[in-house]
Amino acid sequence: MRLEGVHQRSIGRTADGKGARILDQRLLPWEVRWVELRTAEEAARAIREMWTRGAPLIGATAAYGLAMALAGDPGALDGARAMLLATRPTAVNLRWALDQVADAVRALPPAERAEVAFARADAICDEDVALNRAIGEHGLALLRALHARNPHRPLNILTHCNAGWLATVDYGTATAPIYLAYDAGIPLHIWVDETRPRNQGALLTAFELAGHGVPHSLVADNAGGLLMARGQVDLVIVGTDRVTANGDVCNKIGTYLKALAAHDCGVPFYVALPYTTIDRTMASGALVPIEERDPDELRLLTGPDAAGAIRTVSVTASPAYNPAFDVTPARLVTGYITEEGVTATL
Amino acid sequence: MRLEGVHQRSIGRTADGKGARILDQRLLPWEVRWVELRTAEEAARAIREMWTRGAPLIGATAAYGLAMALAGDPGALDGARAMLLATRPTAVNLRWALDQVADAVRALPPAERAEVAFARADAICDEDVALNRAIGEHGLALLRALHARNPHRPLNILTHCNAGWLATVDYGTATAPIYLAYDAGIPLHIWVDETRPRNQGALLTAFELAGHGVPHSLVADNAGGLLMARGQVDLVIVGTDRVTANGDVCNKIGTYLKALAAHDCGVPFYVALPYTTIDRTMASGALVPIEERDPDELRLLTGPDAAGAIRTVSVTASPAYNPAFDVTPARLVTGYITEEGVTATL
Repeated sequence: MRLEGVHQRSIGRTADGKGARILDQRLLPWEVRWVELRTAEEAARAIREMWTRGAPLIGATAAYGLAMALAGDPGALDGARAMLLATRPTAVNLRWALDQVADAVRALPPAERAEVAFARADAICDEDVALNRAIGEHGLALLRALHARNPHRPLNILTHCNAGWLATVDYGTATAPIYLAYDAGIPLHIWVDETRPRNQGALLTAFELAGHGVPHSLVADNAGGLLMARGQVDLVIVGTDRVTANGDVCNKIGTYLKALAAHDCGVPFYVALPYTTIDRTMASGALVPIEERDPDELRLLTGPDAAGAIRTVSVTASPAYNPAFDVTPARLVTGYITEEGVTATL
Repeated sequence: MRLEGVHQRSIGRTADGKGARILDQRLLPWEVRWVELRTAEEAARAIREMWTRGAPLIGATAAYGLAMALAGDPGALDGARAMLLATRPTAVNLRWALDQVADAVRALPPAERAEVAFARADAICDEDVALNRAIGEHGLALLRALHARNPHRPLNILTHCNAGWLATVDYGTATAPIYLAYDAGIPLHIWVDETRPRNQGALLTAFELAGHGVPHSLVADNAGGLLMARGQVDLVIVGTDRVTANGDVCNKIGTYLKALAAHDCGVPFYVALPYTTIDRTMASGALVPIEERDPDELRLLTGPDAAGAIRTVSVTASPAYNPAFDVTPARLVTGYITEEGVTATL
């Protein structure tokens, strides 16, 4: 990721090596504030209060948090692990990362635990970067081939929500091919879905792309169908929260509508994901429970006024219903971009 | 329409018969402010500054404006007509309504013009009400039949944007079947698309339904696909700005996505319109010019803060692109609800 002209990761150790440095994502894009986490309690708070978000990034933050706990008290392993695990109870990646660190240090003498824990947290980050970079490389080959068909104009890519480096340690999943293609000199323009109601596209994806220098335009979630019908989209790339055994894709609400439009207009529709996102225990998307979130996410909107003061205003006076995800049937997916390559079926 | 417990129209003569009374729709739903227009200049301002909106309502407002001008000066016909026509140059209905009044009075002695003009404006309103009521009656029969299939639960209808009484003199087009069905005792629940970027669903349609007492829930524009896939939508009804000779439907951006989802999920998709909305001179929707509006409609949002002060906040820091309409191919339309009846093709 490039931000303020510098290549950086969304999480890393502090300069003295004893803490972790993250962005307070609640303030983006209006303020870029790096925060240094110095204790397991601070790491837990950052996860619980969503300063940081995205399964891989939550896992990395928790791993560093556990290392910090062990640096303060080598006997704190089980207590700190439980505290960190409780921050986001349904996050599979969080548990996995904490187990990675705990398993690496449990048998060690107390004096050696913290250093090994930090090293394991570093490795978790490096592994995430390598995974996303591999997704990006395979996606890059795909984008290169698509661009070769119309070499005289930029490749137009539509994406929904944020499956970018702000959700991972670097590169993101859906955005990894975009960043690598941009760095490789392929001319690009990204249509960024606003992604109501939480506006992750407007707030996060657009911010990421701006930081990296990738040309982009925000569009209403309503606009993608027209853009595809007019030939203004060469492909769609989205991330996913869970892919079921049959290839159905659970992702941010609205993804299904874009997949329908892509199918109707002959636009390729790709899903970028690490293999770990495939849930082989679930036969099809019809079985995925859909999270229903607070209607106020739709009814209220927060942003800066003309003077820069952050304010919250009402969007409607009416009751609202706020399901957070939908399911795109496998029949609408052109291909899956994974760390292993691009595949039409899973 | 019912508002604050009283059946009223969105435009009508003032109590003394010499002016017109409209809602200042810019304030809805946060404030219900009726405004009395007393001169042609005031009527022109109300149209130009969008206190009032929707083709039929704009036409009615202009017709009353011309009558007011003639009441002040029977010789003002051509000047006032030109001034009113210039308020929204592309509105076909505006020109038609002004011509109706002008043609009715041009040959009359000056002293008789104002009264005839007011009477013609009244008639324009009555005709619009009768038209929408006829659309509503035909739609009611459709809703009654659909409800009879599952009589033990409310009929769930999804609508996009505002094709309601706030855009017409009464009943609206897409909403006319809903209001008549509600009044007929058919249990209903309406899914109201937010309709980004101008939020006509969140601000206007939800307000209308609340005033009439119709149960409804606001949903993000992204949600309709999931709702239809889960069987939570019995039918979709939308309005339209223009239907081409082949039946393609130009309507608010995002309509096409809902039509695709309805088609994929086997949900009936209806378009409510008066016959005058059919443009027989245009062969297909591919020829319809799509208005591109100010990106700030997407980038800024205005609403009340917790203290009730109206404030404007930023939604994004990025560039945006804001096409206002899309085209739903006729193949995705189950039927057209017009004043003549419900028809599968035009």
